[in-house]
Amino acid sequence: MTKTFQAYLAGFLDADGSIYVRLKPNSTYKYDFQVAPSVVFFQKDTEKEFLNKLQKKVKLGYLRFRKDGIIEYTIGDRSSIKKILELTLPYLRLKKKQAKLMLKILDNSKSVNSVQGFLELTELIDQFGNLNYSKKRVINTQVVRHHLHQKGLLTP
Amino acid sequence: MTKTFQAYLAGFLDADGSIYVRLKPNSTYKYDFQVAPSVVFFQKDTEKEFLNKLQKKVKLGYLRFRKDGIIEYTIGDRSSIKKILELTLPYLRLKKKQAKLMLKILDNSKSVNSVQGFLELTELIDQFGNLNYSKKRVINTQVVRHHLHQKGLLTP
Repeated sequence: MTKTFQAYLAGFLDADGSIYVRLKPNSTYKYDFQVAPSVVFFQKDTEKEFLNKLQKKVKLGYLRFRKDGIIEYTIGDRSSIKKILELTLPYLRLKKKQAKLMLKILDNSKSVNSVQGFLELTELIDQFGNLNYSKKRVINTQVVRHHLHQKGLLTP
Repeated sequence: MTKTFQAYLAGFLDADGSIYVRLKPNSTYKYDFQVAPSVVFFQKDTEKEFLNKLQKKVKLGYLRFRKDGIIEYTIGDRSSIKKILELTLPYLRLKKKQAKLMLKILDNSKSVNSVQGFLELTELIDQFGNLNYSKKRVINTQVVRHHLHQKGLLTP
């Protein structure tokens, strides 16, 4: 992959992409919440052919066709996210903070071994709310903390 | 300007930009229609600071603040459009056709010296409709031709 292609991807991601982590309720996980990271490129489905080519060239992620005519080119597994961010990070301008935060979260999540450690991780995840001007963020540290309290996993 | 910055701009333009020419009714022009070319980068106004920096670095165009919270970073004068397209063309993937068509139109428009020549130009402009999946394109060659007929500038 050439440096100009890496820079191209950075421009594309800055303009119309998204870097975020969501907390999803999931009782099969130790602390009842799944940490779900994503790097997504959006385009109208008129650009399907282009996105297919892009995905084949990048060799990471997959296309998801939404009902509203938008295609999400989504990179969701951790090693792929790490790769795409390491490729684009030197050239990102608008979403550099999000990329760094994501890499930090992926790195920290490997060493979580206590409720306290998990809550430190969710606090990092909360930071995406401000960086992405997100209004829909419902599950945050407060919600997780409340849940873990109720389950008796966390004492005040 | 480095090649990686040129490639970055190409990615940004491909993802969230627009390259188009409009025909605007304007009786101060010889054939009653103005040929108005634009290269536009769009972002939410939360990214004002970023777009300001980008504009200062590119040294072309200006920011236009729309009422709906979108900023249009617009490059509208012909020599600036030529510059930005020549910088990004080698790296464009999605909008390469639009960029080439724009450069062709800017070049051809200099040598228009007849009604026929003007209509050949408007036919090139019509091509943006398909390339950009544009549904709002109201003034096309047919409209111009009809108008020029009525004014007696064009005989069947």
